[in-house]
Amino acid sequence: MQIVCLLFDGVTALDAVGPYEVLSRLPGATFGFVAVEGTAVLTDNGVLGLEAGATMDQTAAADVLVVPGGLGTRRLVADERVLAWIRSIDATTTWTTSVCTGSLLLGAAGLLRGVEATTHWSERHTLAAYGARPVVRRVVESGKIVTAAGVSAGIDMALTLASRLAGEAVAQAIQLGIEYDPEPPFDAGTPEKAPPAVLGLVRELLGAPTG
Amino acid sequence: MQIVCLLFDGVTALDAVGPYEVLSRLPGATFGFVAVEGTAVLTDNGVLGLEAGATMDQTAAADVLVVPGGLGTRRLVADERVLAWIRSIDATTTWTTSVCTGSLLLGAAGLLRGVEATTHWSERHTLAAYGARPVVRRVVESGKIVTAAGVSAGIDMALTLASRLAGEAVAQAIQLGIEYDPEPPFDAGTPEKAPPAVLGLVRELLGAPTG
Repeated sequence: MQIVCLLFDGVTALDAVGPYEVLSRLPGATFGFVAVEGTAVLTDNGVLGLEAGATMDQTAAADVLVVPGGLGTRRLVADERVLAWIRSIDATTTWTTSVCTGSLLLGAAGLLRGVEATTHWSERHTLAAYGARPVVRRVVESGKIVTAAGVSAGIDMALTLASRLAGEAVAQAIQLGIEYDPEPPFDAGTPEKAPPAVLGLVRELLGAPTG
Repeated sequence: MQIVCLLFDGVTALDAVGPYEVLSRLPGATFGFVAVEGTAVLTDNGVLGLEAGATMDQTAAADVLVVPGGLGTRRLVADERVLAWIRSIDATTTWTTSVCTGSLLLGAAGLLRGVEATTHWSERHTLAAYGARPVVRRVVESGKIVTAAGVSAGIDMALTLASRLAGEAVAQAIQLGIEYDPEPPFDAGTPEKAPPAVLGLVRELLGAPTG
């Protein structure tokens, strides 16, 4: 089984690394990163570089496609070369997935028409423009398309996908391997749960949209 | 505020990227990666390279030190050059932190004597050899030393640290920014919670220790 994750300048590191840390542990699977150009990309916070093993053009097919998000997607939604590649890979995948604003790339590639999907909370309104049906859930399965909410949701998406690909016991073994027993110190992870002042702060301090 | 995260060949990507995604969003903080040698490292699953901005030797001080884990720590616990660097940075930090088996490097550097600490569940027994007092908690604060359990626990550790550094509202805004409202599809993230068969499977399929 070939699992491929797209990388690009301005990717949010955790969007890609969450699914990587889960899916690269699947027995019998090969996980590869492919970059839009060259093999080196700079993540959106500007201080961490990621080195992919191959370029997009060197990769003609995959069983599972993972498209992460990040500010870099703003540019790529208009990059027909990237969108054509996504369409071409999707044509033969078993699963086509995204994390955060990676779903906007799936949408721009035309893969979300009539499809239930999610994205980072700050970009939910954008999904409808691609004909998707935005859903407020952390992981949304719609046929072979699986989209995850913002940034950290890729871990939950990948564990869900791992159970579809290899069964619950293997998915649970991976969860145990990465000791994923989350205990966030606060309960402010969605706009619905965060105090209003925090919602104001995230837009002011961190910039929106993020991820 | 200078936050520095050590990178090395065999690092577990999520150990480093979890805290990075949280702490690099702190207003007024500079987050940098430093590598043990050169600036490029290969993560433990062998398919993702990380590019740090500097080498260890170029970094003489930091306010916050983050030491991630991974199979690469097995070698580094005997690397006096790395241990001396950790001791030297720790001498003037406000916080010295680790994720997963990164705590074994803090231990080997002599920083955990009499200190409550944690690590990946598969390596808990190792901590005592460094004079630490192993604690079964996801995030353990002991003075200025903050250690996290395996791999994914670095996100929880970093949010806890963010609240200490910048207050709860900022930490919550970062949590919202990365949409950290975890929903693991299973409840198998610790050896205490995982079914016995899964505990067997993680050792068989994924190798132990991990992370």
